[in-house]
Amino acid sequence: MPKKSNTVSVIPLGGVGEIGKNSTVVECNGEILVVDAGVMFPGEDMPGIDLVIPDFTYLEENKEKVRGILLTHGHEDHIGALPYLLPIVDAPVYGTRLTLGLVEARLKEHGLNGKARLQCVRAGQRLRIGPFEVEFIHVNHSIADVVALAIHTPAGIILFASDFKFDQTPIDGRPTDFHKLAELGDKGVTLLLSDSTNAERPGYTLSEKVVGETFKDVFRQAKGRILVSTFASNIHRIQQIFDAAYEHHRKVCVIGRSMVNVVSIASELGYLRIPENLLVELEELDRLPKEQVAVITTGSQGEPMSALTRMAMAEHRDIGIIPGDTVVISSSPIPGNEKLIGRTINHLFKQGAEVIYHAVSGVHVSGHASQEELKLMLNLCRPKYFVPVHGEYRMLVKHARLAEMVGIPSDSILICELGDVIEIDETGASKTRKVTAGQVLVDGLGVGDVGNIVLRDRRVLAQDGILIVVLTIDKVTAEIVAGPDIVSRGFVYMRESEELIEEAREKVKMALNECELQQVTEWGIIKDRTREVLSRFLYEKTKRRPMILPIIMEV
Amino acid sequence: MPKKSNTVSVIPLGGVGEIGKNSTVVECNGEILVVDAGVMFPGEDMPGIDLVIPDFTYLEENKEKVRGILLTHGHEDHIGALPYLLPIVDAPVYGTRLTLGLVEARLKEHGLNGKARLQCVRAGQRLRIGPFEVEFIHVNHSIADVVALAIHTPAGIILFASDFKFDQTPIDGRPTDFHKLAELGDKGVTLLLSDSTNAERPGYTLSEKVVGETFKDVFRQAKGRILVSTFASNIHRIQQIFDAAYEHHRKVCVIGRSMVNVVSIASELGYLRIPENLLVELEELDRLPKEQVAVITTGSQGEPMSALTRMAMAEHRDIGIIPGDTVVISSSPIPGNEKLIGRTINHLFKQGAEVIYHAVSGVHVSGHASQEELKLMLNLCRPKYFVPVHGEYRMLVKHARLAEMVGIPSDSILICELGDVIEIDETGASKTRKVTAGQVLVDGLGVGDVGNIVLRDRRVLAQDGILIVVLTIDKVTAEIVAGPDIVSRGFVYMRESEELIEEAREKVKMALNECELQQVTEWGIIKDRTREVLSRFLYEKTKRRPMILPIIMEV
Repeated sequence: MPKKSNTVSVIPLGGVGEIGKNSTVVECNGEILVVDAGVMFPGEDMPGIDLVIPDFTYLEENKEKVRGILLTHGHEDHIGALPYLLPIVDAPVYGTRLTLGLVEARLKEHGLNGKARLQCVRAGQRLRIGPFEVEFIHVNHSIADVVALAIHTPAGIILFASDFKFDQTPIDGRPTDFHKLAELGDKGVTLLLSDSTNAERPGYTLSEKVVGETFKDVFRQAKGRILVSTFASNIHRIQQIFDAAYEHHRKVCVIGRSMVNVVSIASELGYLRIPENLLVELEELDRLPKEQVAVITTGSQGEPMSALTRMAMAEHRDIGIIPGDTVVISSSPIPGNEKLIGRTINHLFKQGAEVIYHAVSGVHVSGHASQEELKLMLNLCRPKYFVPVHGEYRMLVKHARLAEMVGIPSDSILICELGDVIEIDETGASKTRKVTAGQVLVDGLGVGDVGNIVLRDRRVLAQDGILIVVLTIDKVTAEIVAGPDIVSRGFVYMRESEELIEEAREKVKMALNECELQQVTEWGIIKDRTREVLSRFLYEKTKRRPMILPIIMEV
Repeated sequence: MPKKSNTVSVIPLGGVGEIGKNSTVVECNGEILVVDAGVMFPGEDMPGIDLVIPDFTYLEENKEKVRGILLTHGHEDHIGALPYLLPIVDAPVYGTRLTLGLVEARLKEHGLNGKARLQCVRAGQRLRIGPFEVEFIHVNHSIADVVALAIHTPAGIILFASDFKFDQTPIDGRPTDFHKLAELGDKGVTLLLSDSTNAERPGYTLSEKVVGETFKDVFRQAKGRILVSTFASNIHRIQQIFDAAYEHHRKVCVIGRSMVNVVSIASELGYLRIPENLLVELEELDRLPKEQVAVITTGSQGEPMSALTRMAMAEHRDIGIIPGDTVVISSSPIPGNEKLIGRTINHLFKQGAEVIYHAVSGVHVSGHASQEELKLMLNLCRPKYFVPVHGEYRMLVKHARLAEMVGIPSDSILICELGDVIEIDETGASKTRKVTAGQVLVDGLGVGDVGNIVLRDRRVLAQDGILIVVLTIDKVTAEIVAGPDIVSRGFVYMRESEELIEEAREKVKMALNECELQQVTEWGIIKDRTREVLSRFLYEKTKRRPMILPIIMEV
């Protein structure tokens, strides 16, 4: 039985109840649009994992229905999973010029360059894709060329206000397109999905221009070299560094792989205006007087392998910190990174640099709307239904309350979990069922092969290490012909624990003897007994619980 | 050759360049006082470690010289290492009543109760210990009964302003003893060591009373049960919860082991005034109307095993969250704990609680002086020399700058590293040499046995797991009689990777055959070859680098 033609389903595959890996499905009459395909960076509870991507099972099962993948902007949490989605779903990818520039670089790294059908769009454009009409709406954020999406569907307008802020004095002079949002609000928006990242922050997010003022102060006062580290993707921020350097007659050197990449992509595409002769190569730095040098680099989150961190640790091959340098860390810590950034700052101070960082206001502003702006978005769009997205549960709850405050009835606000299907038709919008959704872990070349068991083992191994007991048994006589030998890693320092290990060996021998006396020959049972005896003995002696791995060989 | 009698050495064994494990040596004429003996909680870079304590080698080498251990207050980062120091150094321990109460509980856990010579002191007291006279000075902090120490030495007064703040409206009505500090400043303080924890924060730290106002608002408005979680040691905070509950006719139940312990110690010693019949047992809660229930509990840092976290996860045996509950998390995240706390808050919201947490101002205030208070301390004491303590390097630098701002010459300010010996005599104060100092890791019963090698192994194991290759060789013929067998943990899910493991086995066999052909019989070389071949193969196939452990048995 075919669905009613005016029913539209919206399914968040990522970005609700979590920060990152944003991806949402919009479906109508058996045709699908995907909005964004982002990654999330793993927490400490996922040791060894490189990336987390959405579980795309639903799209795999419906791949022939997908008409297009729409990208709102070029941040990793919105485009990073494309290299994993495109091999499954062969659909055109729509994005603005800068977004697609960044996508191309990412696809190249995965050997997928030239294989995707990239369709360049620009804010203000309106496009028919399958049963949908999509309008791309200019919004401000911490990267350039960002769009919100108005998707016109048989069930009305669905507005995706993916990451955005309302910057009244943006660097490029183009504020978020209030007028288009107001116009859509007038027409009637059925469903608004809006960014909840900063739903806990009262007031307004400061303008990007504020950071430019800070840069100007720093450039006016610094006597030595100036090094500024920020997110590579923050084109407007980088433009302001170039502007300040130009104004104060400093040459600029760009250091750090991702910073070099983005600066080259963004300037090629015209998103960065770099005055002639402003850029210098690393090798030229030493020849310039210190007061004529500025450096733009990565590492503003204290990432261990980044250029700034390596400079701070005096481990960078090409450039070191010189006493008298001024280092500006133009970011605030992403939760979880506080200690890494703190460590970098400590080391920079130790090397004799002056460090200007997040403890100083004006050195960074967020790219996400705070509470007053979120209310403004709600008031401009006046949606019939509202789904807060892009946030952990508590942020979604806060955003829902903001919506109630501006008059949206609480039963028109849906707080979703991954895979919830929101069905919208003339009778209303509601969560009707769930599809497969969740996290897929990427570790090296493995996508989804590391699951709970492997992760649990890694966590146990990290806590107290491993102890391996090996013995060789004669398969005819069932006699032990070699071992038990004990090897451990990450448990105790073997060379200084000979006595403990010897005692453990004796315990194992006794357990094996007992097995023999009781004529236990089943390996499983022998292994279990060994594990039990050792576990108890080692905990008694050390209060540690290493993983115990008995291995039996037969000759 | 005996030292000049008026030379005093001050040696920080902990708490400089780091937060925690505070401990400082003061030495004169071969007699030693130790100020505090605290622990630090390990970071993510120390998997499996329970505690970090100072390296007490210097005190061990000079144990017969130690005349006393002075404690400023009862927080773990000031007393937690006592159970490890006392078995080395048999000296009397001086502390205020509450501090010693908490010390006794801690010693009991280590089976050391009754074995320490605890000497109770009170603020205002003056005591001669060896060549020193020690004055105990009342200061405010986030625990009761805290003292700063003025140690009168032949080289002048050394003032330890360990953790403190200037609370103008403290809960117990006793502000920091401005008058004594002013008096000492008048007499002349030679050296001030002062808390740098909040040296990055401008302005003044808010009064503890502010939190009481927030509690009153919450208790006035909440309709259902109220659960407040805070640090167990924050007696004044707990008092304010009792007061608010009493005022609003709610009974109070105390939940969580450390909270129960501290409330019982503090009320026995008279630091908590709990009205009669206010306390109720857990079993009585269900019988009370919800609007008459308040709960005080632990878990304000999202600690996985704490009462609040278990309630949030619906894993607490005795109490769960009921929709309509109001949960107040009265703390701010200690750097590194942001994600844990965030997770707890998310789960509380999901269970239907209203959660009031650090995003709301007034729910917590710090116990440490901010910049204006640090300047006040400096101005009151007018020290000749200044050593910022209790802080990471960047905080020590900021504190040093505050000292310069109030007029202390920069060459009279010493930023120290662990083990630096500051010698003070009539000619001045300077860093002269270094003694052994650093971190000792406690893991279970092991103190100092887990070092860099074990930690490095744990980190490698956590990243990509371990792969073990076992084979049995005939010792006469050097032939392989069993294996190679491969077992892995934390690398790939074995059951789904049979093909990969089989291929790996083949690679090992080929490597072993080659060894045989080349008549390589040395085990070390055979193991190295196996490791190399496997490492390359597995990286190629998976882009992972598990630890590879070849084990050879002989029969």
